[in-house]
Amino acid sequence: MSGSTPPLTIDSPDPARRRFLQIAGQIAGTGLVAAPVAGSLLGASSSPVEAAQQSQQQSQRAAMPPASVTGRPMPQIQKPFPLPPQSRIGFAVVGLGKFALNQIIPSFAESKRSKLVALVSGNREKAEQVAGRYGVDRMAIYDYASFDSLADNAEVDVVYIILPNGLHAEYAIRAAKAGKHVMCEKPMASTVAECEAMIRASLRAGRKLMVAYRAQYEPFNMEAIRLAHSGDLGKLKLVVSDHGRNLNPSDPADQWRMSAKLAGGGALYDIGIYSLQAARYITGEEPEEIHAMIHSTRGDPRFREVEENVTFQLRFPSGVLANCSASYGYADTKRIMVQGSEASLTLDPATDYYEHKLTVTKGKTEERIKFQEGNQFALEMDHFAQSIQEDQPPRTPGEEGLQDVRLMQAIYEAARTGRAVKLEPRIPDVVADVP
Amino acid sequence: MSGSTPPLTIDSPDPARRRFLQIAGQIAGTGLVAAPVAGSLLGASSSPVEAAQQSQQQSQRAAMPPASVTGRPMPQIQKPFPLPPQSRIGFAVVGLGKFALNQIIPSFAESKRSKLVALVSGNREKAEQVAGRYGVDRMAIYDYASFDSLADNAEVDVVYIILPNGLHAEYAIRAAKAGKHVMCEKPMASTVAECEAMIRASLRAGRKLMVAYRAQYEPFNMEAIRLAHSGDLGKLKLVVSDHGRNLNPSDPADQWRMSAKLAGGGALYDIGIYSLQAARYITGEEPEEIHAMIHSTRGDPRFREVEENVTFQLRFPSGVLANCSASYGYADTKRIMVQGSEASLTLDPATDYYEHKLTVTKGKTEERIKFQEGNQFALEMDHFAQSIQEDQPPRTPGEEGLQDVRLMQAIYEAARTGRAVKLEPRIPDVVADVP
Amino acid sequence: MSGSTPPLTIDSPDPARRRFLQIAGQIAGTGLVAAPVAGSLLGASSSPVEAAQQSQQQSQRAAMPPASVTGRPMPQIQKPFPLPPQSRIGFAVVGLGKFALNQIIPSFAESKRSKLVALVSGNREKAEQVAGRYGVDRMAIYDYASFDSLADNAEVDVVYIILPNGLHAEYAIRAAKAGKHVMCEKPMASTVAECEAMIRASLRAGRKLMVAYRAQYEPFNMEAIRLAHSGDLGKLKLVVSDHGRNLNPSDPADQWRMSAKLAGGGALYDIGIYSLQAARYITGEEPEEIHAMIHSTRGDPRFREVEENVTFQLRFPSGVLANCSASYGYADTKRIMVQGSEASLTLDPATDYYEHKLTVTKGKTEERIKFQEGNQFALEMDHFAQSIQEDQPPRTPGEEGLQDVRLMQAIYEAARTGRAVKLEPRIPDVVADVP
Amino acid sequence: MSGSTPPLTIDSPDPARRRFLQIAGQIAGTGLVAAPVAGSLLGASSSPVEAAQQSQQQSQRAAMPPASVTGRPMPQIQKPFPLPPQSRIGFAVVGLGKFALNQIIPSFAESKRSKLVALVSGNREKAEQVAGRYGVDRMAIYDYASFDSLADNAEVDVVYIILPNGLHAEYAIRAAKAGKHVMCEKPMASTVAECEAMIRASLRAGRKLMVAYRAQYEPFNMEAIRLAHSGDLGKLKLVVSDHGRNLNPSDPADQWRMSAKLAGGGALYDIGIYSLQAARYITGEEPEEIHAMIHSTRGDPRFREVEENVTFQLRFPSGVLANCSASYGYADTKRIMVQGSEASLTLDPATDYYEHKLTVTKGKTEERIKFQEGNQFALEMDHFAQSIQEDQPPRTPGEEGLQDVRLMQAIYEAARTGRAVKLEPRIPDVVADVP
Repeated sequence: MSGSTPPLTIDSPDPARRRFLQIAGQIAGTGLVAAPVAGSLLGASSSPVEAAQQSQQQSQRAAMPPASVTGRPMPQIQKPFPLPPQSRIGFAVVGLGKFALNQIIPSFAESKRSKLVALVSGNREKAEQVAGRYGVDRMAIYDYASFDSLADNAEVDVVYIILPNGLHAEYAIRAAKAGKHVMCEKPMASTVAECEAMIRASLRAGRKLMVAYRAQYEPFNMEAIRLAHSGDLGKLKLVVSDHGRNLNPSDPADQWRMSAKLAGGGALYDIGIYSLQAARYITGEEPEEIHAMIHSTRGDPRFREVEENVTFQLRFPSGVLANCSASYGYADTKRIMVQGSEASLTLDPATDYYEHKLTVTKGKTEERIKFQEGNQFALEMDHFAQSIQEDQPPRTPGEEGLQDVRLMQAIYEAARTGRAVKLEPRIPDVVADVP
Repeated sequence: MSGSTPPLTIDSPDPARRRFLQIAGQIAGTGLVAAPVAGSLLGASSSPVEAAQQSQQQSQRAAMPPASVTGRPMPQIQKPFPLPPQSRIGFAVVGLGKFALNQIIPSFAESKRSKLVALVSGNREKAEQVAGRYGVDRMAIYDYASFDSLADNAEVDVVYIILPNGLHAEYAIRAAKAGKHVMCEKPMASTVAECEAMIRASLRAGRKLMVAYRAQYEPFNMEAIRLAHSGDLGKLKLVVSDHGRNLNPSDPADQWRMSAKLAGGGALYDIGIYSLQAARYITGEEPEEIHAMIHSTRGDPRFREVEENVTFQLRFPSGVLANCSASYGYADTKRIMVQGSEASLTLDPATDYYEHKLTVTKGKTEERIKFQEGNQFALEMDHFAQSIQEDQPPRTPGEEGLQDVRLMQAIYEAARTGRAVKLEPRIPDVVADVP
Repeated sequence: MSGSTPPLTIDSPDPARRRFLQIAGQIAGTGLVAAPVAGSLLGASSSPVEAAQQSQQQSQRAAMPPASVTGRPMPQIQKPFPLPPQSRIGFAVVGLGKFALNQIIPSFAESKRSKLVALVSGNREKAEQVAGRYGVDRMAIYDYASFDSLADNAEVDVVYIILPNGLHAEYAIRAAKAGKHVMCEKPMASTVAECEAMIRASLRAGRKLMVAYRAQYEPFNMEAIRLAHSGDLGKLKLVVSDHGRNLNPSDPADQWRMSAKLAGGGALYDIGIYSLQAARYITGEEPEEIHAMIHSTRGDPRFREVEENVTFQLRFPSGVLANCSASYGYADTKRIMVQGSEASLTLDPATDYYEHKLTVTKGKTEERIKFQEGNQFALEMDHFAQSIQEDQPPRTPGEEGLQDVRLMQAIYEAARTGRAVKLEPRIPDVVADVP
Repeated sequence: MSGSTPPLTIDSPDPARRRFLQIAGQIAGTGLVAAPVAGSLLGASSSPVEAAQQSQQQSQRAAMPPASVTGRPMPQIQKPFPLPPQSRIGFAVVGLGKFALNQIIPSFAESKRSKLVALVSGNREKAEQVAGRYGVDRMAIYDYASFDSLADNAEVDVVYIILPNGLHAEYAIRAAKAGKHVMCEKPMASTVAECEAMIRASLRAGRKLMVAYRAQYEPFNMEAIRLAHSGDLGKLKLVVSDHGRNLNPSDPADQWRMSAKLAGGGALYDIGIYSLQAARYITGEEPEEIHAMIHSTRGDPRFREVEENVTFQLRFPSGVLANCSASYGYADTKRIMVQGSEASLTLDPATDYYEHKLTVTKGKTEERIKFQEGNQFALEMDHFAQSIQEDQPPRTPGEEGLQDVRLMQAIYEAARTGRAVKLEPRIPDVVADVP
């Protein structure tokens, strides 16, 4: 990325003219605006078709529609203009698996500030095919041996890590050392130590680090957060959140998830993190006490190393309680429910890629709130791009990812011991560790 | 566009390898696949972080994840790869109003076979701003005076007409004369004669003509059609479809709609056409009898030239009846309902830009059928691009647009006379008119 | 019925005491009210169980809970008390078919003002069985030969006609002649002349006549009417209503419906009347113009005499249009939809016996409005009972039934001629016909 | 109750005749059955009205409809006939508070086997008013001093205890001693000892004891149980159930609920018992481990003695986990959700008095399952009546109520200690305690 950042907002149409049109429309109705147009265009005796058929004999000016019909000012833009390609932040995507190829890489087309400029893959043939289709320069294809030479590619601003969890720390740290901003899939890493090392590496490199918590950039979840904090639900009392799916051992994208070392954990690490995030972002608080239970079906080869089902309860300082679950064994579920003293909110599906349903129940009425579904991946990448362009911390920095890993470790401890785990009220300041 | 058309399908991953992975996953569980990886990668005593921190002293090969974790074969692709830019069909968009700028132009980013290569606008400044943001060459900006020189731009395969209805015929005919394929917004034109002239012009030019009936490319509507024709609903008996919105005289995009000459008609022409289309594509038949009523609020300046509310009834040869409406006076409504002898289908919203809800009711159960929402504009443009690439007629050619204009004229006649209008069972073959 | 009518409202609890309790509850919380109770009841050292086990040695006064826990004033009554049996209006049910036995007769148990006191049936054995179960005196069982001797049974205030439509007029007239109030199932009769004769007969007898339009006594429909008239939907523009079901020739209750003479008409008469009613009670207007289409499947033995499918369009004086349908050929459908300038209302199911779903859509929010389902049959009978007790005209008198028969005849005419049928703006005053 | 119990099933209509009618309907259509009827009734030249008007000059036989239209056999009965009053089980209702007067007493009208025959209240005036409206003999009004003389009223088979929880044990035991069957509201009592004493008292008296768990007699909950046990959801993994409402200190019916001694507990005892019940009846198992958290808002006078919010987690022997909550502080919520390996079930509202919504989600389809809402109170009372009539144990005997009290005490212990409470796998056999 180089230099100036053009604004995404557009030039306003001439306000005086816009006011004229409004008045014309309101007072005079259609006639005033359109009648002369139609008159001059279509004439009394000839249809537009006939006019067109004779257009070669006529001067072209005569056939032109007047400016009041065409050539109008810029209309109201509902979807902001994208930045021109040269002004966008360049992303290198590391790992060309199912999620990268089906969600992330296609989403660059819908982003406004981000562009795909490099690929990192251990499979050169696959990378070349992807590069060809998405217009990535073949010189910008890397493998894990040449990874560190991303440092030499000035087109790459951000390295987006989409690898098995157990590899996040290594490549995030190497990317920071290569002088790049890092965006990392969730969970941030397997251990607290890894997360802290990643944060330190980015700080030392003077680069930004963001964890890809897509739900925090998704419009329905943001509205749920707004409603929860607005007081419209009354005083919050309970958050319930459940996320599960059937781990599929015949899907290559699920195979590494059965390995404790590659995945860092089981259902909790992979999707329970959405339930945990929900409890945290809905309340806006950090839990101070955790209970948990784990059950894995005996003899199921999927669960030799990682857990199948987790339930966990959280207590927040304000007194809000949360009942959460995660499972690799139950059918697709992705929901968040919030009970307040005055009303209840249900977001179900809450964290789907494409569909969200938000309902607020108050007394005898249920209100369904609709927004246009947005591409949360594009929104997420654009948020990081904007953070970089404007040198602001991203909404979900490394510290946010670290806190979840810390809490997930506490959940495992609570389940193991059968005792409540008490947590310190604040996140220790990691920055202080930087020498 | 020139030459070869690469397939959108991707190279299959090595089937033998895929089978190995499946077997490994099913039989051995996670351990077999992942354990050695983890072992070689992470080691027994050192975390990946430590490993990463020491990576400068190590050879990079040692730090590389093995191919069983990274460098995997191409995963299952749910979203087909786009064609590379050079293989796509080039579109010139004519008219840069609200719909073009908010829906069509942003949708090229989600298309797989189409690209935006030229703009036609009477407002040069606006066109330059749009061109800059969407990467269109400034040399490819035209106005209505220079429109015919699109003929000289070999990048332009398709001219997409997004103008007030009254201008469709003229510019579609000029575009065909310029040797371009034409895609035209609905309704195709104001009169039957205009539609016929457009069809003839494209035939004479040896180019294709498609009417932009987006609903016929939208996944939920296509599923509704499939269900209606499958017999799952039993024998069809009734189609009900209602489309309405409040015409807003202060919205510049609605002002030309109040002019009879520019719009060709009122609520019927603009949105009643969706109800009419629904009755036709759900039944797969052409109506043989029409009744209609029209009511426009007296004194409402919006309805001096065009009608506010229309209800129309259709009888189809098989005996299916349809009750349809269109309105510029009632709040947003876009629904299709189908009553069969065994089950009922409701698609509501049916023709929204972003959201669709499909429900089948049979006895005491209601089944909600969900698909991923697709960008219907991108799908529609890609369909025409594919029609051109494969030299096939598009699904919604000019004759489809002509038939709706003919039927809408019959609806107006029925409303005017208070009598049933009987229709010929078949669409006369327009091609025969070509000399 | 004889004499006085006790009010359904209950004695208010002592206001002073109620206020004390509220204050106690609000200010002092639970302790003030309950603690002394608990103290005196449960004691410090003995559980209520122990106390109970020793109760034989104790005086019973000691074991009594004090008045602050038991013996409280009358609580808030949500379901009004029924009138005592002797104060209720006595009904004779004529016709013991499926509807009478499954809906009407069981509903007396939920009524507050009505009681079942006599049965008329051609099947003595069946009538005796029903009488036994529902506590009807065997002396109050009549057949069609002894029908007129209902005049001699002072317990019978109302004769409720639940016979095939073609028999309504005869028995309603005979009941009026017997000096009884008449409640008659819909449609009121087969012809306008029959309806007029029924009205005249009741007028001559000085007795009331009500048509059993249950939807007009059902809470969700009443709320839909209220919303439509309140302006909350803006200005009304369109009503859509569809009612259909599969006529089942193997169901004895459907067999007479296949006979034109017994049924008076087909789907329109039986269930299209609900669509027609909906258009009328939602708008609160009488239609001034009607179009219609009819289609019956050829060769289907169900439709030799009566029509299968009807669509009809109505125009109301205010400009509201209505698209309605009725069918004996499509799967169960019972819906009413109202499009206003500001919001839309959907009641679906609208006229089910047990379930109603009411939704108002305004902009991007859908509001579901819930009430407790009420027994509409009991409410309907109680309305008539109250009309009699208070000597007021019922909400749906004979004139209401006559108007629907007149309109249904116009619908048949419109369908037959393919022309709009224009209607007089007002219902002619039938009363004037009485000599 | 004395003697014989007539069956609720009805005499079948003559099968030969029924078969004839079916054949007639199917083969001949309507004509065969109805035409002669119509002919003989209506004649060729006279309308039924005219016929009726002339009926005084005619013999009544001539005007009678023939048996093929009227006098038909018994139709299919969807709602079973009630037992005649003299064959029903007589109930004495103890406590005339809000629940008794609004729910239980009106529900006798919809019961088939139960009747209200006696009242116990500390407020004579109120009891007389209720007795008058519901037809209870004034001699059958008791107060807490005369309670034990219920023994002398042979009309009373069952004593139904609807008192504050802390009084259940005393009056249940006294009722058993009076030789009556006992039906007791939930929770059964405050303590395990009380429950055991109640069971023993009924055993000693040779009378039945049932806890009024209405959800176990409610059709939607029974279908949810059936689905959960059927395997249609796959292997069960998780149950989530939440029940809450705002305790209202100004409602007299809520005041005793703020007293620990009268209520036995707070939100858990009152409504958390529905969540606990749900987890138990959905799984069909007894929990073996419990975690819990409690939070009550400080300074809220409602929660001086009883808890506001409880979350509890259960582990069942099969490995199913449950996340449950109860609250006196959040807005009305009554839901049960079941996650299976193949599908998910949501029942929400689950335990409302009037409305239930049951949805099964499997892959991309949501199936809504509808039943006619039934009066669960009438069903519940009729179940106990049938248990008595057929001398079978009720589905929810005292042991079921005891188990919930035992588990709720364990929930309190878990919350107090912050440790998992382990439970014995089986309910100890209380019967063995009987001397």
